[in-house]
Amino acid sequence: MTIVLFTDFGSADPYVGQVKAALAAHAPGIPVLDLLNDAPDYDVEAAAHLLAALAPEFAPASVFLAVVDPGVGTARGAIVVEAEERRFVGPDNGLLSVVYQRSARRRCQAIVWRPARLSASFHGRDLFAPVAARLAAGTLPEGWLAPRERPEVLFDPAPLARVIYVDHYGNCVTGIPVRDVRADARLEVAGREIGFARVFGEANPGEPFWYENSCGLVEIALARGSAARGLGIGVGTAVALRGRPAAL
Amino acid sequence: MTIVLFTDFGSADPYVGQVKAALAAHAPGIPVLDLLNDAPDYDVEAAAHLLAALAPEFAPASVFLAVVDPGVGTARGAIVVEAEERRFVGPDNGLLSVVYQRSARRRCQAIVWRPARLSASFHGRDLFAPVAARLAAGTLPEGWLAPRERPEVLFDPAPLARVIYVDHYGNCVTGIPVRDVRADARLEVAGREIGFARVFGEANPGEPFWYENSCGLVEIALARGSAARGLGIGVGTAVALRGRPAAL
Amino acid sequence: MTIVLFTDFGSADPYVGQVKAALAAHAPGIPVLDLLNDAPDYDVEAAAHLLAALAPEFAPASVFLAVVDPGVGTARGAIVVEAEERRFVGPDNGLLSVVYQRSARRRCQAIVWRPARLSASFHGRDLFAPVAARLAAGTLPEGWLAPRERPEVLFDPAPLARVIYVDHYGNCVTGIPVRDVRADARLEVAGREIGFARVFGEANPGEPFWYENSCGLVEIALARGSAARGLGIGVGTAVALRGRPAAL
Repeated sequence: MTIVLFTDFGSADPYVGQVKAALAAHAPGIPVLDLLNDAPDYDVEAAAHLLAALAPEFAPASVFLAVVDPGVGTARGAIVVEAEERRFVGPDNGLLSVVYQRSARRRCQAIVWRPARLSASFHGRDLFAPVAARLAAGTLPEGWLAPRERPEVLFDPAPLARVIYVDHYGNCVTGIPVRDVRADARLEVAGREIGFARVFGEANPGEPFWYENSCGLVEIALARGSAARGLGIGVGTAVALRGRPAAL
Repeated sequence: MTIVLFTDFGSADPYVGQVKAALAAHAPGIPVLDLLNDAPDYDVEAAAHLLAALAPEFAPASVFLAVVDPGVGTARGAIVVEAEERRFVGPDNGLLSVVYQRSARRRCQAIVWRPARLSASFHGRDLFAPVAARLAAGTLPEGWLAPRERPEVLFDPAPLARVIYVDHYGNCVTGIPVRDVRADARLEVAGREIGFARVFGEANPGEPFWYENSCGLVEIALARGSAARGLGIGVGTAVALRGRPAAL
Repeated sequence: MTIVLFTDFGSADPYVGQVKAALAAHAPGIPVLDLLNDAPDYDVEAAAHLLAALAPEFAPASVFLAVVDPGVGTARGAIVVEAEERRFVGPDNGLLSVVYQRSARRRCQAIVWRPARLSASFHGRDLFAPVAARLAAGTLPEGWLAPRERPEVLFDPAPLARVIYVDHYGNCVTGIPVRDVRADARLEVAGREIGFARVFGEANPGEPFWYENSCGLVEIALARGSAARGLGIGVGTAVALRGRPAAL
C-alpha cells in the first residue's frame, strides 16, 4: 500500500515535504516512496510517457501521486486512474493518459471532493495528497469520487520519438520502448547517427551510443561523459529511427 | 511526534543522512520528514522568515530540527523554542526568532547538555539531533535544558520585503505575508512593476506576476518560465510594495 | 538493521526510488537511509575513500548498499564485505576495498546468485538491492554467497592526497585523515598555501583555510563562500602537505 511520488515539485524544494505532511495527516504511518520529484517542468506529455515506463516495476496496489500540473488552479479536472491494479491520482491533463490507454484492465473516476482549504497553486498538497492517502489506507469516504468514462485529455500512447528525460549523468531517455525497435536500427539525433551498445563498458570512449535502459526504453548515452552536453540535446529533442524499425 | 528537518545541509550531500543516523541512534523508529534541506546558505534571516511561514501547516507536537548555522563552533548558544505547541531545536542565531516572536504561546530554553564528542563544524548531527530526537520521543533527560527568558538574537518579525527563497522553477518567494497586502497593490522589483494574477494559468505568457503562494506569502513568478532568470533577481533582492499596502 | 545507501545514482533521478522499491519487495518494512546518492560519478577510488570515512559513524549491523559502478554489465564481480560488524554490498571494482583493508576484522564473499531478470545497466536495483535487503532482514537464502579470499580489486588504502568530494557549499573534502597530519602542516593546493582554522567563524572572510571536517578528514573551505570556485579546484585536484606531516 505504498504511495509513490511522481512529480515536478523538485527534490530540493520544500513542496515534497509539505505533500508528505498532508499524506501523514490523512493516513498516518503510510509508507511513501519518492520515485521522481524532478520530472521535466511543465512537459506533461514527456512525463506521461516516463510514468508509463516506470510504473510496471512497482507493486500492484501501489498508489501513485502523479502531479505535473502547469494548469493548476484553472478548470482542468482531477482524476483517479486504475490500470492493471495500480492506482494513479492526479490532474486530468494527459499525465495519466498514456498509462490508461496502454492498460487492458482500466478505470477512470473523477475526484469530486474539494477540501475546505484549497490553495490556487498547490493541489498536490491540498487535493491529490488527501485522496491518494485515503485510497492507499482504504479510508476514502464515499462520495469523494464519481464515475467518469475516460480521462478528458488523452495523449497519443504510441512511442514518443523524442527525449523525455535527461538524468544527472547526461543520459537521454527517449519515449521509445526497445521492444518496438529492430535490432539493426540506428538512431538519428541532432544530425548524427548513433550506434547500439549493450552496456557502457562496451561502448567506445567519447562515442555516443544507444542502449536499452533499465525500464525498457531507448536511451542515448556517452560512456563516462554526458550525452546531453556532448550532442547538445535535451528534453524535447526529436529522435529518428532508421532501418525500418518494427513498430514505428 | 514527527521530526521535521529544515536546514541548509543540502539535499544532495551526505550531511542529512548523517543527521538521520544520529536521530535513529537516539530515538529508534521515530519518523523524520525532510521539509527543506536547501535553505539559502548562510542567510539566517531569510531562513527564519521561510520557517515561520511553513511551520503552521505541520502537526502540533512536531519537532523541528532547524539549522542554518554559519557561526557553528563559535560562542553562539543553542536553544529549544516552543511556539503554539510546535517545538524547534537549533542555534540561537535568530533562526528561531521570527517563529518565536510571532507566537502568543511561547517558551525558550537553553540547551546546556553537550555530547562527549562534539565536532567543531557539525552541531546539527552532534548536538541538535540528539536533543530533537529525545524531545520527540519523550526521553529527554533532566538537565539537558535550562530556562532562558528569550532567544539571545531576535530578528525583526515584521514582513521582510525581499526575496527569501528561489525554487527550482525560478519562482521567487518573498518574506511578505499576503494578508498584509492591499488587493490593488503592485510590486516593484528590479525596477519593474509586477501585476497580480490568481494562478499561473491566468497570467500572460512571458509576463512576470505575483500571486499568493501556498504558504500565504507574496511570490513572484513567470508562467512556464523562471522569474529569477527573467528578472535577474535572487535571494536578497529587495521588493517594494506600491499602492499603500495594509500593513507595511 | 538499517540499509544505508551510498551511490552515484543521483538524488534527483528516479533510480534511488527504483532501488527502494526493490528493497521493499525483498524485505518489506526495512528502514532505508540515504547517506549519499551523489557520489562523484565514475570516480570509484574517491568514493571508496569517502565511504571508508563515513561508515564508522553508522550502527554496527548496518548494511551498506554501495554502488559506483561504471563497469556495470561487464565481467566485474559482485561482493559482500564485512568490516567491523558492518556489511557492504556492491561491485568488486575497488569501491569496498578501502573499507576492507582498513579493517582488522574483515571478510569477503562473492555474490553468486543472479536474478531471473538482470538488466545490463542497473545492477543496483536487480542484483545488489535484493542481496542487501535479505542480508539486513536475515533472510538471505543459502547459496547466494560463496567464499572469496579478498576483493579482486584493491585500491591503496593509504590517505588519498586529492579532493574526493565537493559539497554544495563548495567545501572540498580530501582523502586525508586529520590524525595523519601534523598540527603545523600547511596544505598546498592549486599553487597556493592554505592555513588551518578550527571553525568557519575563526577564518578570515575571503581567505581559504583547511580544517578537520566532521568525519575526520582534511577539508578545504572558504567562510561564506565556495572554496571550489574560489580556488578553481574540484574532485581529483591534487593536494600536497608541507611541513613533514606525520604519516604521509
